[in-house]
Amino acid sequence: MDEPTIKEIRQAGERIRPFVHRTPVLTCETLNRMCGGEIFFKCENFQKTGSFKIRGATNAVFSLSDEAAGRGVATHSSGNHGAAVAAAGRWRGVKAYVVMPENAPEVKRDAVAGYGAEIITCRPTLEGREEGLAEVVARTGAAFIHPYNDYRVIAGQGTAALELCEEVSGLDIVTGPVGGGGLISGTAIAVSGVSPETAVIAAEPENADDAYRSFEAGRIIPAENPDTIADGLRTSLGDLTFGIIRKGVERIVTVSEEDIIKAMRFIWERMKIIVEPSSAVPLGAIFSKRIEIAGKRIGVILSGGNVDMGKLPWDD
Amino acid sequence: MDEPTIKEIRQAGERIRPFVHRTPVLTCETLNRMCGGEIFFKCENFQKTGSFKIRGATNAVFSLSDEAAGRGVATHSSGNHGAAVAAAGRWRGVKAYVVMPENAPEVKRDAVAGYGAEIITCRPTLEGREEGLAEVVARTGAAFIHPYNDYRVIAGQGTAALELCEEVSGLDIVTGPVGGGGLISGTAIAVSGVSPETAVIAAEPENADDAYRSFEAGRIIPAENPDTIADGLRTSLGDLTFGIIRKGVERIVTVSEEDIIKAMRFIWERMKIIVEPSSAVPLGAIFSKRIEIAGKRIGVILSGGNVDMGKLPWDD
Repeated sequence: MDEPTIKEIRQAGERIRPFVHRTPVLTCETLNRMCGGEIFFKCENFQKTGSFKIRGATNAVFSLSDEAAGRGVATHSSGNHGAAVAAAGRWRGVKAYVVMPENAPEVKRDAVAGYGAEIITCRPTLEGREEGLAEVVARTGAAFIHPYNDYRVIAGQGTAALELCEEVSGLDIVTGPVGGGGLISGTAIAVSGVSPETAVIAAEPENADDAYRSFEAGRIIPAENPDTIADGLRTSLGDLTFGIIRKGVERIVTVSEEDIIKAMRFIWERMKIIVEPSSAVPLGAIFSKRIEIAGKRIGVILSGGNVDMGKLPWDD
Repeated sequence: MDEPTIKEIRQAGERIRPFVHRTPVLTCETLNRMCGGEIFFKCENFQKTGSFKIRGATNAVFSLSDEAAGRGVATHSSGNHGAAVAAAGRWRGVKAYVVMPENAPEVKRDAVAGYGAEIITCRPTLEGREEGLAEVVARTGAAFIHPYNDYRVIAGQGTAALELCEEVSGLDIVTGPVGGGGLISGTAIAVSGVSPETAVIAAEPENADDAYRSFEAGRIIPAENPDTIADGLRTSLGDLTFGIIRKGVERIVTVSEEDIIKAMRFIWERMKIIVEPSSAVPLGAIFSKRIEIAGKRIGVILSGGNVDMGKLPWDD
């Protein structure tokens, strides 16, 4: 498959429609007054499996031939992508294998197991995951669904921004978080296809700023043991996502841990919705003026809502 | 004013429409599968000021003559009703006075002050509140807006159930929490007016079961220092709310603290929305089979979403 265009994103939208939610777009008057702009939140925290990841996983799993799908699907993930592949596998009626580190939270293991997937436990290192995955693929012939560096996944992730632009016209900016880059690269393709005058800006934790540094350097500089509360954004760009981001993203801004937590708490307290830390990074960039929105209309993709309720980043 | 009928609730709906949200009705497939019924949540946690209280307060404040309103509006409250009267006063362009106990959480004082109301601090007892209120009313001539024992307030609270029944047909049951009884009495009038075949059931914390005991005894038995996490439900019924509840509520069920917390956490974790403990009492009754919903369609009013994020009822 070649690099996806708006055509492939529209096809992905049709393909996944029977399975995923068309999530709502929410606004907050208080916030708009505070910021002097208009913010439109695309609420993927309300998405099936609790994050946008189900879009890409479903598109990839349903793009497989019956023969390939019949051997099952596999991935490695300690987080949202694992649950997404498990759910998509169940919907397609095929076996899903999810390689998870032995220290993955019980709640995440339960979610994956709840969708009927087989969990393969591995050491909590990149090497451990890759070995576990290679073993499963060799044993079963299952199709590997990469969390982000896969054009079918990228096209699926782009459907969130496509829906947002269909629902809200005249956006000056669309922003979302960047980790491995699947969401923001799909977003860049979707936005340039349906609203070419809209700028796409990626928001990244300061403490995991490999995308920022890669973007500035013009070559992929992987993250080294990034330490951020935004657990969905600790991964590094892939070559496919980086190629799209270089062309389609205007800039990448970084956000401090303090600003991420402040933004997350604002969304919880004032908007009364649960978002995970990764989802709060773009609003953190707005609060810290890394993204200026006075007089502007900006779409923000809230990427997910899977939070360990026993470990919240505040204690007052 | 006589006891309200569906006509007064419809009028209240027209009166408050320019100011309050028509809140969404949400469903949760996982939950419906678990319970074998269909639950429709009316999300007053997304309401202006974060709770249904703004409906009754706005109806009452906008029912006043210009002359009466000109002297201001007053209430005593450590919680949602105080913020509601403050907001409604601002919308009407009149002064609001809110008597608050000296130990009220800072966040609640800030909310009231943020709407421009004058805060009068009192001792944290019923006597302290009543003295504080009497002093304000004597000094200013402000109109007292009771938190629940007021037909204008009751009519306003009934508009939430009216909207719910307009949006979802064929409900077998509508349920909501009961504290002072403003919400559930307004609900009873609305439901009997537009969907007389629908039963209204009230849900109350076991630890604050004055409404249950009063309902059984046929006379008001006030709560004595009730100790429940559902802080909005520590108040006792008034004579006006009790009169309506006796006629229009089928039964009152009680819920343990453990089941309230379990239901609250379920709503946070699975539905990704923030509700306060009081809102979770009806779902706690469903989880504990105090309300049987197998094969039924049930409307649940989620009363509010104002939570102290630093004091959550779980620590694992």
